[in-house]
Amino acid sequence: MTTHHSMAAHPVVGIVMGSDSDLTVMELTAKALERFEIPFELKISSAHRSLDATLEYIRKAEGRGIKVVIAGAGAAAHLAGVIAGQTTLPVIGVPLASTSLNGLDALFSVVQMPGGVPVATMAIGEAGAKNAGILAARILALSDEGLRRKLQSFKEALASEVEEKDRTLQKRRP
Amino acid sequence: MTTHHSMAAHPVVGIVMGSDSDLTVMELTAKALERFEIPFELKISSAHRSLDATLEYIRKAEGRGIKVVIAGAGAAAHLAGVIAGQTTLPVIGVPLASTSLNGLDALFSVVQMPGGVPVATMAIGEAGAKNAGILAARILALSDEGLRRKLQSFKEALASEVEEKDRTLQKRRP
Amino acid sequence: MTTHHSMAAHPVVGIVMGSDSDLTVMELTAKALERFEIPFELKISSAHRSLDATLEYIRKAEGRGIKVVIAGAGAAAHLAGVIAGQTTLPVIGVPLASTSLNGLDALFSVVQMPGGVPVATMAIGEAGAKNAGILAARILALSDEGLRRKLQSFKEALASEVEEKDRTLQKRRP
Amino acid sequence: MTTHHSMAAHPVVGIVMGSDSDLTVMELTAKALERFEIPFELKISSAHRSLDATLEYIRKAEGRGIKVVIAGAGAAAHLAGVIAGQTTLPVIGVPLASTSLNGLDALFSVVQMPGGVPVATMAIGEAGAKNAGILAARILALSDEGLRRKLQSFKEALASEVEEKDRTLQKRRP
Amino acid sequence: MTTHHSMAAHPVVGIVMGSDSDLTVMELTAKALERFEIPFELKISSAHRSLDATLEYIRKAEGRGIKVVIAGAGAAAHLAGVIAGQTTLPVIGVPLASTSLNGLDALFSVVQMPGGVPVATMAIGEAGAKNAGILAARILALSDEGLRRKLQSFKEALASEVEEKDRTLQKRRP
Amino acid sequence: MTTHHSMAAHPVVGIVMGSDSDLTVMELTAKALERFEIPFELKISSAHRSLDATLEYIRKAEGRGIKVVIAGAGAAAHLAGVIAGQTTLPVIGVPLASTSLNGLDALFSVVQMPGGVPVATMAIGEAGAKNAGILAARILALSDEGLRRKLQSFKEALASEVEEKDRTLQKRRP
Amino acid sequence: MTTHHSMAAHPVVGIVMGSDSDLTVMELTAKALERFEIPFELKISSAHRSLDATLEYIRKAEGRGIKVVIAGAGAAAHLAGVIAGQTTLPVIGVPLASTSLNGLDALFSVVQMPGGVPVATMAIGEAGAKNAGILAARILALSDEGLRRKLQSFKEALASEVEEKDRTLQKRRP
Amino acid sequence: MTTHHSMAAHPVVGIVMGSDSDLTVMELTAKALERFEIPFELKISSAHRSLDATLEYIRKAEGRGIKVVIAGAGAAAHLAGVIAGQTTLPVIGVPLASTSLNGLDALFSVVQMPGGVPVATMAIGEAGAKNAGILAARILALSDEGLRRKLQSFKEALASEVEEKDRTLQKRRP
Repeated sequence: MTTHHSMAAHPVVGIVMGSDSDLTVMELTAKALERFEIPFELKISSAHRSLDATLEYIRKAEGRGIKVVIAGAGAAAHLAGVIAGQTTLPVIGVPLASTSLNGLDALFSVVQMPGGVPVATMAIGEAGAKNAGILAARILALSDEGLRRKLQSFKEALASEVEEKDRTLQKRRP
Repeated sequence: MTTHHSMAAHPVVGIVMGSDSDLTVMELTAKALERFEIPFELKISSAHRSLDATLEYIRKAEGRGIKVVIAGAGAAAHLAGVIAGQTTLPVIGVPLASTSLNGLDALFSVVQMPGGVPVATMAIGEAGAKNAGILAARILALSDEGLRRKLQSFKEALASEVEEKDRTLQKRRP
Repeated sequence: MTTHHSMAAHPVVGIVMGSDSDLTVMELTAKALERFEIPFELKISSAHRSLDATLEYIRKAEGRGIKVVIAGAGAAAHLAGVIAGQTTLPVIGVPLASTSLNGLDALFSVVQMPGGVPVATMAIGEAGAKNAGILAARILALSDEGLRRKLQSFKEALASEVEEKDRTLQKRRP
Repeated sequence: MTTHHSMAAHPVVGIVMGSDSDLTVMELTAKALERFEIPFELKISSAHRSLDATLEYIRKAEGRGIKVVIAGAGAAAHLAGVIAGQTTLPVIGVPLASTSLNGLDALFSVVQMPGGVPVATMAIGEAGAKNAGILAARILALSDEGLRRKLQSFKEALASEVEEKDRTLQKRRP
Repeated sequence: MTTHHSMAAHPVVGIVMGSDSDLTVMELTAKALERFEIPFELKISSAHRSLDATLEYIRKAEGRGIKVVIAGAGAAAHLAGVIAGQTTLPVIGVPLASTSLNGLDALFSVVQMPGGVPVATMAIGEAGAKNAGILAARILALSDEGLRRKLQSFKEALASEVEEKDRTLQKRRP
Repeated sequence: MTTHHSMAAHPVVGIVMGSDSDLTVMELTAKALERFEIPFELKISSAHRSLDATLEYIRKAEGRGIKVVIAGAGAAAHLAGVIAGQTTLPVIGVPLASTSLNGLDALFSVVQMPGGVPVATMAIGEAGAKNAGILAARILALSDEGLRRKLQSFKEALASEVEEKDRTLQKRRP
Repeated sequence: MTTHHSMAAHPVVGIVMGSDSDLTVMELTAKALERFEIPFELKISSAHRSLDATLEYIRKAEGRGIKVVIAGAGAAAHLAGVIAGQTTLPVIGVPLASTSLNGLDALFSVVQMPGGVPVATMAIGEAGAKNAGILAARILALSDEGLRRKLQSFKEALASEVEEKDRTLQKRRP
Repeated sequence: MTTHHSMAAHPVVGIVMGSDSDLTVMELTAKALERFEIPFELKISSAHRSLDATLEYIRKAEGRGIKVVIAGAGAAAHLAGVIAGQTTLPVIGVPLASTSLNGLDALFSVVQMPGGVPVATMAIGEAGAKNAGILAARILALSDEGLRRKLQSFKEALASEVEEKDRTLQKRRP
């Protein structure tokens, strides 16, 4: 797999994942951000195997201009929760289906955070990875009118796409 | 139950719930927002029973200064998803445990959104309701330095609270 | 895939689905209706991405002669529930297995409707899609004696088919 | 518990349940039908313990003027499915939470019908019991304009009720 | 698939399944019975689609010399339960994994029988189908000393087989 | 709790449970056997804590005249499976709801036996405990015509009971 | 609740829990260790709210003589996993039932650890808390012959207890 | 498949599995132990089919120098629990995904042990099999300083590996 991220010098979104095996799915987050021209960075770092690096990353994130952190992980997916405890930035969690439990383990590990430390949890897998990027865009658009307009266009495009598919279907009628 | 919300004239967070039976739990969202002195409003409106009112509310929300919408619902919890489709604001969903399935039905209905329309899903029930308010604060703090400091203090208070409980425990030793 | 629906000028059943990826399964609903010579229409429309079009469709449906609405959707499947809230026609929901949760998410999202807004929920996937068409036929047959007879024949054919399969099995004996 | 059903001489809906322990929940179906002035009858009959009586009931039902059959059962809930196989009338199933599995067993037993024999499945328990009555009304209203108007009023009342609750909530503001 | 069952003129076990698609798995029951030289018959009959034939079969079964009935079914698997209600013979149920729920639906539908009507439930799928035959053998051996000895040999063979596999494993050591 | 079992000198059914906390539920098995006047014995013995005693019991059981073994256990319920591996008698397993998982853990531990070693699994908890006794009766009746007649009477009584409840319900009508 | 732990000056087991609300259950771990006269310490520290304190504790644990760490947590239970990533000591995790999901969320969050970082997971709740202490004893007994003997006695006591309960049961017979 | 285990003359870890079909996954346990140069042995033995051999193995294990027992099993996975009841050595259980329930049945059967008899449960399948070896190493390292150092190196290697993967990712940036 070759990737050519338009990853900017000054990223505002950090996409963290626990393993490079998560990269295929988490690229969908990157693609969503690219669509909205939001500069981002990708980071492989684990809550279990490389916690120090994860903590160093998250503790410096705000100072480096990161505004939203997105964490994707499978199985006992602790990455998003651990990050959420170390920052006051909004943290978005993407549960991945990497075990025989089809992502239900990751979903419970990401979403069932105790009171005090929220993780904005997305759907399991690809839909969630894509939506993480869109949610980041919605958050950032609160102070970026241009981004708000892009989101509005995107929303209209979604509707048009559905309607276009419906028109195609109707044409198949005799 | 009597409630005295410090709900402001110019709310920036809208808390919507499908039924007044959800109010007891969703008050925890209100309390979290009050802690951060974030003006909010509470709204009872249903995706199934009063969709027109819900749509009118959500379509006017941004113009009225709402920046984050929080939706709490149980069972086949469609409220957050429907709202998320009608706005480009960030939408936070709180699944509630209102059926014999203990909130698993609501969790799946809120979190498993298809690509394109994200809902930032919280834990089931009280922890999730509280965290919805905190996540809204984290989002709003991106353009509010004072709020960021309050979140930092809150984060430190959470740590202190745990440490205080530990000290109390240690004192019970002989 | 090429399809040649015998979709009539004056359909009485509307089959709505959230995405063209649901079409393969929902064609089984169409086939079931064709078997009973019930005129129907197919519509792609989403509760999240194209709610306006969905609402316009459902609000005009009764006036256009639609008597039963069938909605198929996967994941956080809100389509049937949202439609059920906007009409007094009977609404049949077909949960589809489009995520790693194998349709359990869609089942809970479709069936766990709160009191007041029923969705007649079918089995997950192909069996449910087929049965949606048959249930529509059972409903319409309440005022169509010819259709009732066709259902009676279909019921007898089901029994004969099972008995024929049993005879085939018995013949394989030595 | 005392009950005074307005059960008519010529019922058009038959409510069947497997045990008198299901009666408390299934009374909610009766209440919903009473609201729409739909004549109904209640029947205790089991797919396992009194199948002959169940079959006799269901085979005579259509001739006696029954148009919709509603079956409530818990655990391995076979009643609705067995009935659906013996009639061409629309059959509505209400899964009840009568075991430690909280109704998930009943839900799967009712909803996962094989292709050919549909059961219109409602939510588990009270919400489902109520909705079964409303779905029956929606079905019967296809050939009863007065009933259609009652359903329209009911739909508007649901919306008004939510809006009234919201107004009450707003008044509590300072 | 070609099958050559050693099905006897005077079967003592009846294997019933709802569909010929269940035959591949239920052949494992037949094979287990053949191993113990127990005469059996196979029957395709459905609780939903051909209840009359099923009832006729089960009501005549005892008179025809059947001593144990084995029923395999998937989805909302009502076959074993319905049969168990119509006979006093021991009934063994095999839940089959024929839907996206992987047999959990069938398991709940077979095992969660209400008090009064037991179904001896086996594991989902192939292991369960095989075990149904062995359980029938255990039951029949209560009055058949030769069969008891075969079961004893089978039990010893199972142990030997495991021990043989272990010896093979140990030989692979350097 | 005081109990007066009509436990006979020469029991033919052995009811084994892992803990005296299971006794309240497993008494329902005893009651069912008493109804059919089947002599039985109750035994507390654990697959984990007292395996030697369990093995000694099961290995002597057949010689002592035991024909059916019933094992009730909760949590990681291994008792029935371990017993089934040590005898060629039919073994009936009753999964008990003794943990926060509501008996689903016990159900999976009892029913999902590998090929070769069947456990006739009953419903979780009280219904299953009662049915274990009835299944034992059905098995024993294969060589006991009197018991077969009692089962036939019991079956008729179940039907009468349901029909009597229905008559009571009908009398409440105005 | 008053507690009088026999917590020693030189503990070899550290019991960590995320909240003082977990203390009631985790006292059962303490009791089990007391039975084996294993010195231990109790610590309240959270992976989310006080990660620094948790890390400081775990990083010093080995140097302070701790040989086994036991971590109890509910919901998205990350404590055991995070600790396991920061030490090479054996880490035992106890999932607690603190949400509406009955501990299934905690179980998945504790047990589904990715390859490389094991957590020795116990049963949900009280049984697991007790067993955590016993497992620690089994581990420590590998280099403590006296402790091995205590475990042997404990094992024999468990068997005796079951047998004593059985004798009590047998005496109740007529 | 050919295997060349560096299985030692004096193994300290015993890896037991119920069937040779479990061998592919349980080889990962062997590999993990080889990495730490811990002598081990592999054994195929079943709790159901060859209990005598299993008991003989486990009862002699401690005398033969075995210090940790690892048991892998699928379905109603009783092997680890039965072994844990027959020894005071630490027992590690690996639930395997060998049925349509994806290992959830094995997980519940292994982890939900009653108080008194702990099984150190690992994740389902491959991750769990690998981790079982690492947990054994952590346990044995309590009295083996060299092994502790290897674990420390392994832990550092895990971190380095993640960081290396991150560096590779960063290099792909433009």
